Amino acid sequence: MTLPRYRDPAAPVPDRVRDLLGRMTLAEKVGQVNQRMYGWDAYERAGQGHRLTDAFRAEVAAFDGMGALYGLQRADAWSGVGFADGLDAGGGARTAADVQRHVMEHTRLGIPVLLVEEMPHGHQALDGTVLPVNLAVGATWDPDLYADAVAGAAAELRARGAHIALVSALDLVRDPRWGRSEECFAEDPHLAARMTEALVEGARRAGVAVVLKHFAGQGATVGGRNSAATELGPRELHEVHLTAARAGVAAGAAGVMAAYNEFEGLPCVANRYLLTDLLRTEWGFEGVVMADGTAVDRLVRLTGDPVAAGALALDAGCDLSLWDDSFTRLGEAVERGLVSESALDAAVGRVLALKFRLGLFEAPLPPAEPVTEGLPDPAEVGERVARASVTLLSHTGGVLPLSRAVRRISVLGPNADSLARQIGDYTAPQRPGSGITVLEGIRAAVAPGTEVVHGPGCGLVGDDVSDVPAAVALAAGSDVAVLVLGGSSARSSDTVFDANGAAVTGSGSPSGMTCGEGVDLADLMLPPGQRALLAAVSATGTPVVVVLVQGRPHALPELDAPAAAVLSAWYPGPRGGRAVAEVLFGDAEPRGRLPVSVPRSAAQLPVHYNGKDHRYRGYVDQSAGPLHAFGHGLSYTSVAYGAPRLSHARVGVRAPRLTCRVTVRNTGARTAEETVQLYVRRLSGGTSWPRVRELRGFVRLSIAPGEEAEAVFEVGPDTLASVRRDLRLAVEPGVVELETGPASDRTRGARLEITDACITDSESNAI
Amino acid sequence: MTLPRYRDPAAPVPDRVRDLLGRMTLAEKVGQVNQRMYGWDAYERAGQGHRLTDAFRAEVAAFDGMGALYGLQRADAWSGVGFADGLDAGGGARTAADVQRHVMEHTRLGIPVLLVEEMPHGHQALDGTVLPVNLAVGATWDPDLYADAVAGAAAELRARGAHIALVSALDLVRDPRWGRSEECFAEDPHLAARMTEALVEGARRAGVAVVLKHFAGQGATVGGRNSAATELGPRELHEVHLTAARAGVAAGAAGVMAAYNEFEGLPCVANRYLLTDLLRTEWGFEGVVMADGTAVDRLVRLTGDPVAAGALALDAGCDLSLWDDSFTRLGEAVERGLVSESALDAAVGRVLALKFRLGLFEAPLPPAEPVTEGLPDPAEVGERVARASVTLLSHTGGVLPLSRAVRRISVLGPNADSLARQIGDYTAPQRPGSGITVLEGIRAAVAPGTEVVHGPGCGLVGDDVSDVPAAVALAAGSDVAVLVLGGSSARSSDTVFDANGAAVTGSGSPSGMTCGEGVDLADLMLPPGQRALLAAVSATGTPVVVVLVQGRPHALPELDAPAAAVLSAWYPGPRGGRAVAEVLFGDAEPRGRLPVSVPRSAAQLPVHYNGKDHRYRGYVDQSAGPLHAFGHGLSYTSVAYGAPRLSHARVGVRAPRLTCRVTVRNTGARTAEETVQLYVRRLSGGTSWPRVRELRGFVRLSIAPGEEAEAVFEVGPDTLASVRRDLRLAVEPGVVELETGPASDRTRGARLEITDACITDSESNAI
Repeated sequence: MTLPRYRDPAAPVPDRVRDLLGRMTLAEKVGQVNQRMYGWDAYERAGQGHRLTDAFRAEVAAFDGMGALYGLQRADAWSGVGFADGLDAGGGARTAADVQRHVMEHTRLGIPVLLVEEMPHGHQALDGTVLPVNLAVGATWDPDLYADAVAGAAAELRARGAHIALVSALDLVRDPRWGRSEECFAEDPHLAARMTEALVEGARRAGVAVVLKHFAGQGATVGGRNSAATELGPRELHEVHLTAARAGVAAGAAGVMAAYNEFEGLPCVANRYLLTDLLRTEWGFEGVVMADGTAVDRLVRLTGDPVAAGALALDAGCDLSLWDDSFTRLGEAVERGLVSESALDAAVGRVLALKFRLGLFEAPLPPAEPVTEGLPDPAEVGERVARASVTLLSHTGGVLPLSRAVRRISVLGPNADSLARQIGDYTAPQRPGSGITVLEGIRAAVAPGTEVVHGPGCGLVGDDVSDVPAAVALAAGSDVAVLVLGGSSARSSDTVFDANGAAVTGSGSPSGMTCGEGVDLADLMLPPGQRALLAAVSATGTPVVVVLVQGRPHALPELDAPAAAVLSAWYPGPRGGRAVAEVLFGDAEPRGRLPVSVPRSAAQLPVHYNGKDHRYRGYVDQSAGPLHAFGHGLSYTSVAYGAPRLSHARVGVRAPRLTCRVTVRNTGARTAEETVQLYVRRLSGGTSWPRVRELRGFVRLSIAPGEEAEAVFEVGPDTLASVRRDLRLAVEPGVVELETGPASDRTRGARLEITDACITDSESNAI
Repeated sequence: MTLPRYRDPAAPVPDRVRDLLGRMTLAEKVGQVNQRMYGWDAYERAGQGHRLTDAFRAEVAAFDGMGALYGLQRADAWSGVGFADGLDAGGGARTAADVQRHVMEHTRLGIPVLLVEEMPHGHQALDGTVLPVNLAVGATWDPDLYADAVAGAAAELRARGAHIALVSALDLVRDPRWGRSEECFAEDPHLAARMTEALVEGARRAGVAVVLKHFAGQGATVGGRNSAATELGPRELHEVHLTAARAGVAAGAAGVMAAYNEFEGLPCVANRYLLTDLLRTEWGFEGVVMADGTAVDRLVRLTGDPVAAGALALDAGCDLSLWDDSFTRLGEAVERGLVSESALDAAVGRVLALKFRLGLFEAPLPPAEPVTEGLPDPAEVGERVARASVTLLSHTGGVLPLSRAVRRISVLGPNADSLARQIGDYTAPQRPGSGITVLEGIRAAVAPGTEVVHGPGCGLVGDDVSDVPAAVALAAGSDVAVLVLGGSSARSSDTVFDANGAAVTGSGSPSGMTCGEGVDLADLMLPPGQRALLAAVSATGTPVVVVLVQGRPHALPELDAPAAAVLSAWYPGPRGGRAVAEVLFGDAEPRGRLPVSVPRSAAQLPVHYNGKDHRYRGYVDQSAGPLHAFGHGLSYTSVAYGAPRLSHARVGVRAPRLTCRVTVRNTGARTAEETVQLYVRRLSGGTSWPRVRELRGFVRLSIAPGEEAEAVFEVGPDTLASVRRDLRLAVEPGVVELETGPASDRTRGARLEITDACITDSESNAI
């Protein structure tokens, strides 16, 4: 007997899909776009191991197959999965194999199930290595380093039998009140796009496919609120919010997740323009579109009927739902004529194609041996990411790097000694005793004989100052005080969760959280207790170094005066305390650069650097500009930037090519780890009002003291492209400045004319 | 000799336009779209009178004609025009006649000039009657009253020879940080639309044509900043920002002013979609489009060239420029082929048609007798508007209305005794001794023997508390303290102005302004000095009544506790002090209702009531909802609302008609002046995600104590319309609630099904 064609690994994927589709019943098709079940409901503890649940068997039976199973190995406060009964690495792989075998052996066609896991910054599973959050990744400006970290994390996920990693990559921090700011790489499209490419590439090295979250425009929140409201129009979408998605798709992402937010009145999951016209027709994307959790069911508010809700999403271009009931009723939708069976076939076909491409039919089970060969250790790379992300915001009086000759250091503040608060949201429970807090990092870093003393000083939130005097006493007797302040996304068992796992706020800070999904913060100042602690410690006269452990930029209206130095460590991950200590003592240079502008207050939002250029002079009572600009970050040395030099002063719109060079001299006494930034500033031309400036490149330079180095930017169509009237990218004629510098507010520019006319090389004013 | 056809008043306007156009040179055409000159540069003092300037003669000669002359009679700090050398009513009419005669007698074709004046809230000219600002007008919810006020003000303008009134009407307060909030009627489209209709109708009664400012979407500021930046998309534009413009156009507005802001990347003045496709093609508008001041010249940033800038605006659909040089070079633009002469002809034709329709060719000169016959006295109506706008926000302990038996009242605060601070922006210098401040109003209102004492207590801005003790001493010895706090848009001779007359901020508050064009406020709290004054006066134990004189809703996080009552008087105009006193003493009922939500802080913006309905639960540190909701306003009595009763529970999408009734009972001891509000809340259906609710009607009821009255809403297609996928208005099937109540946060609803099917009356479940 010959194998059915769809089982022939040598057949082209489209043929295999067509063949298999032709064999399927309507119910089986609906089953292939079903991802309703929470993965942690698919297994239960049995003796020393685990077994599959009746609920799982029933879900498979209901459709004689299963499209995808979400979060089989997810562990966190929401899922309720912990070390007592959850899946560790070994148990995860075994249970994944059990799941796969059950699906293949108990269904008519034996189509394997896609195993989908959260990998926001490391696999969100017991013993999954936690990486620094994406905002910290953005602060490194180092896509290669990030790709290594992703490869390591993805290898863990793959070893546990999963195929698909869900990763936030497409959202931008346009309003830092948003609790999901920590999940974004940046406020800037270009930086986010480069990290998104690194993400897709890194995961591929470990054989893992990535679904990019969230498509599209989720960062354009109204009021920084984690709701689905947006007033985003097509131009802002195209000029700002699509860049990372376009890059991720081009890099080969397996899928995108349709975001909760609306665009032009329709939630993304119901938005045919986004999911079909743009993504598939214009961009040629062949991967899958997955709904965000319960996003299809939410459409009942529009349709008044769950069956119509599923039809609306399918018709728009959604292929796989997540936790939705309505999408499992697509058979009824087809029968009622609400959507065509060919639309369902297209979605099923894309899911099947992904399964074929990932080799699921040939190798459905977890690899016998972990696929770590040649892949980095994620914990080690994660620590490098943490080190590279530490951003020195201000520094006066040369207090840093700390001298190892100090007699006594006090390490104070609510975030000084909390592993939970330095790892961010979307993390699994950590093994007790694991990780290195800032206090522990400093203790390990000091010279023998240096005394390290510690007190929390205050709570994370609130205005209780009862612990301040004790902290002041410690600081007063110290040579330096390191104050570890900031926020927290640490969930706990008393957190209240929404239907999709977001934290529910509204009656005060859930478990002391100030950040994370569902935890938006209106007033971006540090809480009163933290401010009181800083003021009191500063008043002792002991030099104060503030380390901010945070998932968003807090507003820093008055920190600079009392603190000798302020660093942002973001949420640096489990080993972040060592990374911070290394930077504090100068074992590593501070090389983080701001991926997001630091506001002075919530009242002046938005402060992102790349708004439309209308030369606003500021509010009557305060500046409209940030305290620290996008791209800013100090080092322990000093540098001098030359002016940018262009190989051509004039290029044509067709295939423009030139080189932009800038020389950077290290004028200080320590190694410079510079991130040289290239911005485009349009002076005239184009079909849309220009932005102040737009990042279009960056180069990292390491420069020895007294030496100089040259950053070289190859400028081409991508660098110069803008969004045309028809919303397509193109190089448009006009005049731009190519600006280089160490930050978005400290640039020098060179004029470049882009002309419609054909120009020869000799005309182009080569210099 | 027969008259040329264009001079024949019996000929149809299109014929006259065609005939005249056919006689014109290119230069003369360019002259008809020219409004470059500042009107106050057209005349100068000469002895006891005024004469035309050489600059004016030269401008007329340059194009052998003049399209329009802006602001001949404008007087304010920016123009520098005051009583010493400016035009009062008589001088204005004489000089307007001189201007008109000069233009007609010294040009080949003798085409009269349009005289255009600012009438934001009264004619901005010496002795022009100042009305309350538009935000106060919005608080009245009384379009008929406003139409009377406009008619009176427009009669003054017409008597002085002007033809066109420029009035802000289309902008909405979506972000109260914006300094131009005072110029808006409301945050809500429906309320603004009804006032815009009243404006057009009121002006028409006095023979004045209105140009509506600003088209379109200027209220969708980024960060409440008076810049041209916006991220507004088509759907938000259509669902929120176009309603007032559509109503004003339908009511017969002569023109709209193209706003500074961009829409989808292009400033409105360059936006062909807005000015031509939407306004003219879809809406059938036949009036003129005027640029906002220097808006065309600003396009050089896009085009790199002023001639191309003028061409871009003309091609988009702009007919008349304002203060722009580039638009005077359209002849060159035509000759260079940047724009067609037929586009120029179309613009000239619209300007000429307006002149014909206004009767300028037949009666070019100011009327010999002022046209006040049958028209209201604007000062008297303005005072009624002020009275009707006073909004009682909170009230505890029954301190109001104030008893006339009180022995001593202290009237404190920086806004207690300042005429300049109660009249708002866009106002001319006032005669010394004119007007009635709150202090003066209270002094005049008290019984003989009641002592009224006064101290400012603090400055308008800053944190100087040196005057607080004196105010506390006054309050401590009083039976009640009236604290008049708030903001100010009072310009002065030391204000620094931008090229378009907006105030320039950036180095602190210009002349103490906190509001007005160019004066945006980041932190919406009252300044520290005012807060300290309130706290100190409140601590005396004397009951405190806070009166807010303000051009925007300030954030009121902690006012309610220490104040026994809080009222917003907005900028009530010159006689506002008497209006406030009458409400305080109960000679008038407080009947203002909030046209805008009152925020708790700037950190929680936006707070407007009609955002998209995604059931956001709030920030972790504060509510996302306002302190006082849109539509809120207390009275001195109490009322009980019944549930709404619908004549039909089911209607068809074609020409739906029903009646919605609600009974209101006055359960208190004083007359109720209720504004019954009708909102539509969509439960399902429609092609865009629903908003929380949308105002679609309001009815004013006056109810004697113990009586009840019924509000009757005729519900038709306009009430039920929503914006379809193709961005046109239509009634869409689904289920809505018709909600009635005294405020947007205190409604009761009745379910209405809107069905696609044809239904007969007997099927419609009449009740």
